[in-house]
Amino acid sequence: MKKYPTHLIKLIDVLKRLPGVGNKSAERFAFDLIDWPQSHLKEMAAVLDSLRDHLDHCQECGCLVGKEGCPFCNLDKRDPKLLCIVAYPKDVFALEDTHEYRGVYHVLGNLLSPLEGKGPEQLRLSQLRQRIADLQVKEVVIALDSTLEGDATALYLKKELENSQLSISRLAFGLPMGSSLDYVDGGTLARAFAGRARF
Amino acid sequence: MKKYPTHLIKLIDVLKRLPGVGNKSAERFAFDLIDWPQSHLKEMAAVLDSLRDHLDHCQECGCLVGKEGCPFCNLDKRDPKLLCIVAYPKDVFALEDTHEYRGVYHVLGNLLSPLEGKGPEQLRLSQLRQRIADLQVKEVVIALDSTLEGDATALYLKKELENSQLSISRLAFGLPMGSSLDYVDGGTLARAFAGRARF
Repeated sequence: MKKYPTHLIKLIDVLKRLPGVGNKSAERFAFDLIDWPQSHLKEMAAVLDSLRDHLDHCQECGCLVGKEGCPFCNLDKRDPKLLCIVAYPKDVFALEDTHEYRGVYHVLGNLLSPLEGKGPEQLRLSQLRQRIADLQVKEVVIALDSTLEGDATALYLKKELENSQLSISRLAFGLPMGSSLDYVDGGTLARAFAGRARF
Repeated sequence: MKKYPTHLIKLIDVLKRLPGVGNKSAERFAFDLIDWPQSHLKEMAAVLDSLRDHLDHCQECGCLVGKEGCPFCNLDKRDPKLLCIVAYPKDVFALEDTHEYRGVYHVLGNLLSPLEGKGPEQLRLSQLRQRIADLQVKEVVIALDSTLEGDATALYLKKELENSQLSISRLAFGLPMGSSLDYVDGGTLARAFAGRARF
């Protein structure tokens, strides 16, 4: 660390807690912040300071909600028979952005990852079973990342829910929209081929 | 913008003011911040809130200083006959890190950039002249970026200071340490060739 003034070192250390921000980026942010108008600094401080008062996880679905309550658990507007399982709150907003889905959500909060010490007990599974029973869910859509952890978690969920009278599906794998065949990786192409549909 | 809760939108907007942070990065930061422990959030808020109370620009050299005063303007420990001109406070810390330089600094605060509306009046030139006279400076080292703006500013400074009895130099251009000839760009190679020294 260079010979910065004490408060600058503190600022850099705090900024380095942000994801993907190392020493260089934190320094860049810090030197920029110093030149911010005082009002912007105060605003950022206030937003961070009151974060917990304004944002929380919904007790039901686990998604992120403001003081206005959870819009995804409003059963007047959503179909409780259809439940979509996602890993993180941000996935809910990504799915909502497609305007394709009108069911309810369940946020696991994690993906299985033994290397990071994340086991089934961190997946909010008891709440999931409770909600499936309470809402009399008929269909479950597993919307998890197409990564090693996503695949493992999806398989685990399938086994866990298999004995119930649920229809279980998972998001389709294939070519992303607007892609050229020769730029798509082999794994994706193989999955797209295996999942080909009558045209 | 996705249908985020109000406070989350505010947080993302505030984070987007950081340099090089667009929508995606700000969203990533925001969702990470939500999971931070309350103590870390409060700490970051406090550091930002009190930034101006702890950090300021030195009235003399223009560098960034804490409450402990400017270590680079302490003439008991630094040679005031040698003055190094840099563009930004962060450059001072980079040069200090080399442990090669024991003179004083002058931070311009900007580089000439007509496209960005930055002219000579934004370069703290009157303070520079005043300090050169006050400190009875004998040698000036121009330590500016090797960019178009850096070159333009260096040439401008040279013209401005030419009539005084100063020895003026600029940082050397050439191969960076540890580089292979065939990976160095043509411009650098040409400057290194032109600046070759007896070996």
